[in-house]
Amino acid sequence: MGLKIEQPCVELSRVAVSETHGEDSPYFAGWKAYDENPYDEITNSSGVIQMGLAENQVSFDLLEKYLEKHSEASTWGKGFRENALFQDYHGLKSFRTAMASFMEQIREGRAKFDPDRVVLTAGATAANELLTFILANPGDALLVPTPYYPGFDRDLRWRTGVNIVPIHCDSSNNFQITPQALEAAYKEAEAKNIKVRGVLITNPSNPLGATIERSVLEELLDFVTRKNIHLVSDEIYSGSVFSSSEFVSVAEILEARQYKNAERVHIVYSLSKDLGLPGFRVGTIYSYNDKVVTTARRMSSFTLISSQTQHLLACMLSDKKFTEKYIKTNRERLRKRYQMIIEGLRSVGIECLKGNAGLFCWMNLSPLLDKPTREGELDLWNSFLHEVRLNISPGSSCHCSEPGWFRVCFANMTQHTLQVALQRIRHFMEPINKH
Amino acid sequence: MGLKIEQPCVELSRVAVSETHGEDSPYFAGWKAYDENPYDEITNSSGVIQMGLAENQVSFDLLEKYLEKHSEASTWGKGFRENALFQDYHGLKSFRTAMASFMEQIREGRAKFDPDRVVLTAGATAANELLTFILANPGDALLVPTPYYPGFDRDLRWRTGVNIVPIHCDSSNNFQITPQALEAAYKEAEAKNIKVRGVLITNPSNPLGATIERSVLEELLDFVTRKNIHLVSDEIYSGSVFSSSEFVSVAEILEARQYKNAERVHIVYSLSKDLGLPGFRVGTIYSYNDKVVTTARRMSSFTLISSQTQHLLACMLSDKKFTEKYIKTNRERLRKRYQMIIEGLRSVGIECLKGNAGLFCWMNLSPLLDKPTREGELDLWNSFLHEVRLNISPGSSCHCSEPGWFRVCFANMTQHTLQVALQRIRHFMEPINKH
Repeated sequence: MGLKIEQPCVELSRVAVSETHGEDSPYFAGWKAYDENPYDEITNSSGVIQMGLAENQVSFDLLEKYLEKHSEASTWGKGFRENALFQDYHGLKSFRTAMASFMEQIREGRAKFDPDRVVLTAGATAANELLTFILANPGDALLVPTPYYPGFDRDLRWRTGVNIVPIHCDSSNNFQITPQALEAAYKEAEAKNIKVRGVLITNPSNPLGATIERSVLEELLDFVTRKNIHLVSDEIYSGSVFSSSEFVSVAEILEARQYKNAERVHIVYSLSKDLGLPGFRVGTIYSYNDKVVTTARRMSSFTLISSQTQHLLACMLSDKKFTEKYIKTNRERLRKRYQMIIEGLRSVGIECLKGNAGLFCWMNLSPLLDKPTREGELDLWNSFLHEVRLNISPGSSCHCSEPGWFRVCFANMTQHTLQVALQRIRHFMEPINKH
Repeated sequence: MGLKIEQPCVELSRVAVSETHGEDSPYFAGWKAYDENPYDEITNSSGVIQMGLAENQVSFDLLEKYLEKHSEASTWGKGFRENALFQDYHGLKSFRTAMASFMEQIREGRAKFDPDRVVLTAGATAANELLTFILANPGDALLVPTPYYPGFDRDLRWRTGVNIVPIHCDSSNNFQITPQALEAAYKEAEAKNIKVRGVLITNPSNPLGATIERSVLEELLDFVTRKNIHLVSDEIYSGSVFSSSEFVSVAEILEARQYKNAERVHIVYSLSKDLGLPGFRVGTIYSYNDKVVTTARRMSSFTLISSQTQHLLACMLSDKKFTEKYIKTNRERLRKRYQMIIEGLRSVGIECLKGNAGLFCWMNLSPLLDKPTREGELDLWNSFLHEVRLNISPGSSCHCSEPGWFRVCFANMTQHTLQVALQRIRHFMEPINKH
C-alpha cells in the first residue's frame, strides 16, 4: 500500500473491469491458433483452416463486377461535399429506400418495408445493442433460444446491464423452440425476480443454419402477446436461405395475420452476411413501433454509417437487375457449398442437422465424445484444432445444452480449401470408422 | 383503461421514455426554423441563414483536388474483397498510423502519438460516450466547464447514466477554468454524494472558439492528480486553431513534464471538424492507459468505421505533402473568416470573446438584453431568428451561466453569405446604435 501512494491507480468503471464476455472462450482461442498458423494452399498447406468464421466469400465476383462497371458508386462527381457533410441520423433517403426494397426482394415481396421505419446502425452488433437499450432496463432480461451466437453475451449485455435467460432447445425436435421451453425460461426468470422484456430469436438461426418454422413463429407471437413483451427477430441471414420459399419472416406473419400488436415486433438486418460486407458496417433496426423508431434513430448518433458507404450501397442496391441476380446466384452457390460439406461429412459417417440457410452447418460429433460432457466436447474440439488443424466452434460456446455439437463454416474459403478440410476429416475418421 | 386491455401498450425502458436530451431546446428549434425557410443566394435571399452549425466548408476544394488526382483512394484495385471483409476492431493499421501522424503534424511534432494507442470510433460522439462508459459508473459524474457543447448532455449521459456537474466559468477572466471553480464543482458533487470520476474539457473550446492556456492545463493536471481522477481532453478542433503555436495539447504537457500519471489522461479526436468530414464518421480515443485502450477497442465493436472510409483516409492522410498544405491553408482560411466576422461585428458595436480557433465566435450581446436573464437571452435569440433571420446558438443552450452570449458559426457558408449575415446584423443594430 505504501508504494501505491506515489502512483495511485486511477479507478475505472464496472464495464471496464468486468468480464471479457467470451473473449477467453474456445470461440476466441481457436482464432488465436488459426492466426498463429493459418492454412495457405501454397505456402502453408499444413496450417490451420479457419472454419469458425461466418463470412460469405462465395459471391464477391458479382460485387466486384458491379463496381467495375459502375464507377459512380465509388466516386461522387460533384456530390463530394454534400456527401462528406451528410451526418443526419435518418441516413441517406436513397439508401434507406434501397435497403427497404432489398429486404422486400429477399422475401420475394411477401412483406413490405417502409423506408421511414428503417433505422441505420454501424452493423447488426450495434443494432442488437441499441434495441436492448431501448427495450429493457439494467437487470431485466431477454429470453434467447439456445444454441445462440456467442457475440450476444457481449452485444446484449455488456453496456446495457441486461441479462440473457436461455430458452433451452435440444436435438429431440431439431432444436426448434417449443411453448414448454418458452414457458420454462419465463418461469426461471420470474423465480429469480427478473423482469422479462422480450424474446430475441435469430431466423435463420446462427449457429443452426436452419430457418424457424411458421408454426413456431406463430406460437412465439402468441407467447409475446400473452406476456405483453417484445419480439426481436434477427434476420441477418435471410438472404442466405438456399431457397427463398423456405424462409418465413416474422414480417410476413404480421401482414398475413393483420396482427394488431405489431408495435412489439422488431427486425434486425445487416449487409455483413448476405452481401459479405462486414467491413462496411451496415446494420438496421426495422421496428413496427413508432416510439422505438424515433428513439433508435436518435441513439443511432453513436453508431452512424459512413455516408461514403451509404452512397456506394444506395447505388448498388437500387439496381434491381443486379440485386435480383445477386440474390439468386448467392443462394445457389451457398446451397452447393452446403451440399458439398454435408455429403463429404456423411460419407465418413458424420451427420449434421438438416439445414437450409446460412454460412455454416451444425455438426453432430456426440458419438465421438469420450465423455458426454462440456469437457468431453472441448477435448474433441482440441483434437480438431491441433490434430486435424480445423478451427470449428464448439456448441458450448453457443450455450448449447447438449454436448457434441459443432458449428462448421463453409463460405469463408475457396472450394478447394473446403475439399482439403473434408479430406482431413476423412483421414481423422478412418481409424474411428474401422473400429 | 378498459379500451387498453385489447391492445396493451408494450413497455419500453427508461432510456426510451426519458428526456430528449436537448432536442427540445432552442439549439434544435433554431434548426427547424432554418429547415423551413433556408437562405439561398438566388432562390431565397430573405431566408434564414444557418449560423448554428459548426461545419467546416472552407477547405473542401483541397480535398476534392486530392481525390481527383488520387483515384486509388476511392477505389481498390484488387483489394476490394480484403477491404470489404476487414472488420477487426483494431482498425486498418495503415489508417491508425496515418491518424497518429496527422495528430502529430497538427501539433508540429511537439507531441508523439503511438498508433497502437489509437482506438477508432464512428465519430467523436461515440468516442466521448465510450470513454464515459469506461471511466464512470451510473450515478457518478464528470466535471465539465461551462459553457459546453450541448451534445454532451446526450453523449455523456444518455445511455451511461452518468451525470455532468458544471464547472462554472464566466467572462471576468474570459471563461478560463480556475482552481476555485474546479474545487467548487467537486465540492458540489461531494455534497450531493456523487462520485466524481474525471474532468472533461474541450480544447480548443466549443463554444468559446479559444484555446486553453498552458497554465490552466497545468492546474487541471494537478487537480486531477490530487483527486486521483481522470482527465479527458476533447481536441477535435486542434487543427482549426488559426496558428499552431497558439495551441497546447495536454499531450505536450505530459511529454514536457515526463508526467508519471499519464494513465489518467485521455484525448478525443475526430476528422469531422478539421477535415470537414462529419458524414464519414471518424473519431478516435487516444489513451495513455493500457486498460482503457484494451477495453475501448473491444467496445468499439459497437461503433466501427467503414473499412471503405478507412481505406480512403489512410491514403489521404499518409500523403504528408498533402496534409501539410491542407493544415496550413485551412488554418489561414479560418483565420480570415474569423477576422471578417469579428471586424464586421465590431464595426456595429458588437464585441466577441478574443478567439483563436474553431468554426465560430462567442458573441456578447448582453448590452442588448431587455432583462439580464435566460428569458431575456431567449427573447433576443428569437428576434435574431425571426427578424434578422439568423440562426445562432444562445449561450444558455451551452449551460452558460451569464445571459447574453451567443455562438455564431462562420465556416459552414460562402464568404458572400457571411457578408449578407453581417449586413443584416448591421441593419438590426442601426436603430439601437442611434439611441
